[in-house]
Amino acid sequence: MSSVLKGIAASSGIAIAKAYRLVEPDLSFEQTKVEHADQEVQRFQDALQTSKNELEVIRDRARTELGEDKAQIFEAHLLVLSDPELISPIEDKINQEHVNAEAALKETADMFVTMFEQMDNEYMKERAADIRDVTKRVLSHLLGVKVLNPSMISEEVVVIAEDLTPSDTAQLNREFVKGFTTNIGGRTSHSAIMARSMEIPAVVGTKEATVTIENGDMVIVDGLNGEVHVNPTDELISQYEKKAADFADQKAEWAKLVDEKTVTADGRHVELAANIGTPGDLEGVTNNGGEAIGLYRTEFLYMGRTELPSEAEQFESYKAVLEGMKGKPVVVRTLDIGGDKELPYLNLPEEMNPFLGFRAIRLCLEETDLFRTQLRALLRASTYGNLKVMFPMISNLDEFRSAKALLLEVKEELIQEGVEVSDSIEVGIMVEIPSTAVMADQFAKEVDFFSIGTNDLIQYTMAADRMNERVSYLYQPYNPAILRLIKMVIDASHKEGKWTGMCGEMAGDEIAIPILLGLGLDEFSMSATSILPARTQIKQLSDDKMKALAEHVLTLGTNDEVIEAVKKEINL
Amino acid sequence: MSSVLKGIAASSGIAIAKAYRLVEPDLSFEQTKVEHADQEVQRFQDALQTSKNELEVIRDRARTELGEDKAQIFEAHLLVLSDPELISPIEDKINQEHVNAEAALKETADMFVTMFEQMDNEYMKERAADIRDVTKRVLSHLLGVKVLNPSMISEEVVVIAEDLTPSDTAQLNREFVKGFTTNIGGRTSHSAIMARSMEIPAVVGTKEATVTIENGDMVIVDGLNGEVHVNPTDELISQYEKKAADFADQKAEWAKLVDEKTVTADGRHVELAANIGTPGDLEGVTNNGGEAIGLYRTEFLYMGRTELPSEAEQFESYKAVLEGMKGKPVVVRTLDIGGDKELPYLNLPEEMNPFLGFRAIRLCLEETDLFRTQLRALLRASTYGNLKVMFPMISNLDEFRSAKALLLEVKEELIQEGVEVSDSIEVGIMVEIPSTAVMADQFAKEVDFFSIGTNDLIQYTMAADRMNERVSYLYQPYNPAILRLIKMVIDASHKEGKWTGMCGEMAGDEIAIPILLGLGLDEFSMSATSILPARTQIKQLSDDKMKALAEHVLTLGTNDEVIEAVKKEINL
Repeated sequence: MSSVLKGIAASSGIAIAKAYRLVEPDLSFEQTKVEHADQEVQRFQDALQTSKNELEVIRDRARTELGEDKAQIFEAHLLVLSDPELISPIEDKINQEHVNAEAALKETADMFVTMFEQMDNEYMKERAADIRDVTKRVLSHLLGVKVLNPSMISEEVVVIAEDLTPSDTAQLNREFVKGFTTNIGGRTSHSAIMARSMEIPAVVGTKEATVTIENGDMVIVDGLNGEVHVNPTDELISQYEKKAADFADQKAEWAKLVDEKTVTADGRHVELAANIGTPGDLEGVTNNGGEAIGLYRTEFLYMGRTELPSEAEQFESYKAVLEGMKGKPVVVRTLDIGGDKELPYLNLPEEMNPFLGFRAIRLCLEETDLFRTQLRALLRASTYGNLKVMFPMISNLDEFRSAKALLLEVKEELIQEGVEVSDSIEVGIMVEIPSTAVMADQFAKEVDFFSIGTNDLIQYTMAADRMNERVSYLYQPYNPAILRLIKMVIDASHKEGKWTGMCGEMAGDEIAIPILLGLGLDEFSMSATSILPARTQIKQLSDDKMKALAEHVLTLGTNDEVIEAVKKEINL
Repeated sequence: MSSVLKGIAASSGIAIAKAYRLVEPDLSFEQTKVEHADQEVQRFQDALQTSKNELEVIRDRARTELGEDKAQIFEAHLLVLSDPELISPIEDKINQEHVNAEAALKETADMFVTMFEQMDNEYMKERAADIRDVTKRVLSHLLGVKVLNPSMISEEVVVIAEDLTPSDTAQLNREFVKGFTTNIGGRTSHSAIMARSMEIPAVVGTKEATVTIENGDMVIVDGLNGEVHVNPTDELISQYEKKAADFADQKAEWAKLVDEKTVTADGRHVELAANIGTPGDLEGVTNNGGEAIGLYRTEFLYMGRTELPSEAEQFESYKAVLEGMKGKPVVVRTLDIGGDKELPYLNLPEEMNPFLGFRAIRLCLEETDLFRTQLRALLRASTYGNLKVMFPMISNLDEFRSAKALLLEVKEELIQEGVEVSDSIEVGIMVEIPSTAVMADQFAKEVDFFSIGTNDLIQYTMAADRMNERVSYLYQPYNPAILRLIKMVIDASHKEGKWTGMCGEMAGDEIAIPILLGLGLDEFSMSATSILPARTQIKQLSDDKMKALAEHVLTLGTNDEVIEAVKKEINL
């Protein structure tokens, strides 16, 4: 039967393919007595061998498609499966106690997991996670349950999941994953940001995709309107094929602007930059005509691993991005961890309100070793391109002064060591905390630039968690309070001859762009795929008219009134 | 050995007394076989009887000292202990299985607790909590472990605890509890607010009070400097007795101002009001010369119970406060629940960031039945005094408009029913969310008054959870960003002929008061005990000089620079 789910359009485009459910399988079983222990041991060894074969294929594929880093994860899993310290006790248990292989495996593995987890040693804790992962795999084979191997997908699919973590998405093969849809999340959740960076159509926050959609169902993901059609009629499929073709045409139209500058109808140039997470995203930036990197989120370097990345490793990544951009500006944000982005190996205490907690610059100014390593890597890479360093979550002048002092200290240290460091690195801050927007005039005297992080700025200014669906109606980008704060920041920077960018989702939004132009924003940084549509829009707008529009909307009272005024002005 | 702990001065004054540890006792035991079941049943019955006797005394004392409400809690406990449905199975278990009374009690009680908790019925869930409480009491007597009966304290003590919940503090007898100290909390945590309202010296956030201090240790709580001395020398005790006497003299000096108006040295009158939680707090307001109630926190009416308070019950409370204030202004804040204040019977879902979640007006505008009941009770009480209604957590104009529309609807409804309602009720809002401060000019056209809630305003503006010790250094009341937002609100209200009050902790702070005077604040609402010191301070300050001071500090960059400037101006 055909049905439709409503969600949030998280990444534009149309995908039409069979459903692939990325949902944890049921691995429950009963403990039983077996008569022939030798046959049961054989059954266990078969499952073990199947698991190994599978992991070897996955590892090799990961190595060529996802990089050595990801391959190492599966290499570690293989090592576990060959470890006699784990395997022998399982076989002994079957032989001596005549229990089924499932029970022998589970009980033995659980014992090791508990033991390793209790050790005060990050390496051993990670081994516990490895054992848990491979146990699931072998258990699946014993139970004849399909194992989830997202990296093994080899036909065109739409992925259906509760949510997608950064490591889930990293394993997805762009060639075959045509789109995805999740139960939870919003436009600024990680899954949504990843989808845009991978240029895969996505609809998130459908609430019930995993409930409604079965493996193999035909699915249309409409990332333009936020709809998911399940088992659509042939007629609907035809309509969507047409829509997909139209979208492709539109993209082709946009693509003509790839090498152009971004200039308003009356001649003001603004910079359209891209937000990226890894050097791998550079290709998308080039293909979409990015004039700069407005936000390089360095936290991905720190995620999905068991220890901090070394200075050398970081240096290579920063260098790759700086070189790849061939002298165009690259704004690198220093580590922004905490909140919804955790690093297990840092052992941070649980917080009641992580979004108002110990994160980003707060953490870096306390864990200065970690911070110095990143700053060293950045400064060493600085001679390979046009580096701008940006500190996240700055809430007061003292923090900026401390962070900048540390940067200068590290620079001096490197120079003493004889390392060459660029002399023209701009140092700026994210403006994502209300206090900093209000104090922008003071900050403008000391920083080289601002970049407004609207995702957080909106959530703090409205006191509404952007991940919490019960208050999502309060995430109001066009509330005049937000626009007034943005104006304060831009005006303050211009008064001191500095520039202001924006790297939140808002920078690529067609309702926001006219206002931001009018407010005088200098740089718009967004998902690479939003750049060409934004350039197309900006070329049609008059800077003068947008100034008048911006002035007008600042006097309005509510979010809705602003939307209405913009739509009226630009005929949307 | 004598030692000293540093903490946060949460309520002023000096207390010198023996320590009383309000810390959960260890109730662990081993299950054993008993030879003589009849003797074991007797042992169980003895413990039961001791528990009953104890509960009767506590109930009676609660009735006279804390009110019928609290007495009902213990009445319910007594009923549980007389319920054969619970008691018989325990005795049967001892007789039939020959297990010790502890095991029989625990196992039977746990079964009932689990059963009741699984029912989808708030009443039964509360019964589960009662059973859990009395089981602890009987178990303590079986094990010969001292039971904690804070309401039974009958000699002068200093209470030592991890933290104190509102219901813990409600049980404390003001006559004997001379002071308290806790491991966690800050100046704006509930334990601190309660201490000030009870006029008990308190030091919170010592981190290790319960670790360091034993029952019976001599303790000095220095609520002026945030120090706790454990087993002090006789010399130190003498010094502190002198300090306590000086503080008493100072209080006597302050008391002379109890009937005076609050006027600056150059003749501007401002209003000094009190924050209260229950009608019981009125006495403190009168004793301390409060000119108004600037914040009546109605949530206490909803806490420590199993169902919503009825309209009649609420009406009685509001009427009592309005009558008690004899025509002086009473600003009643509508229900501000959520965040760190939970109501179990509302079954609100857990949130990742409760401070940025579904609370206060957000909840009231969705649960309109609950909200209408409160508004009806308030409007019915309005003819008994000078009522002003205030909505909490307003973040945008739509919310205020909806809340006010509901109020007018309810008013119309009451008038139709023939109920008399005052025609001069002012309707205002808390300004505690940055967006509302930034939009104060728009709000000022529609509200009758503002009351700035600095505790939340600071935490949202700085994006720092005020309960989280790792980021408490970012809770910066004097950060010029906060002062600028306060100025925006005051200026906006005056421009429209409205008034602005403040009901956060900042309103009673000696560094903040000079600035707030200078910014033109009309009403300062604080803990009742802060009123007379504030009046003393204000009488010495010149409004004109404070205007110049305020103008100056707004141009500064950091919290510390502001503190320094104020101290210099007022010779602190």
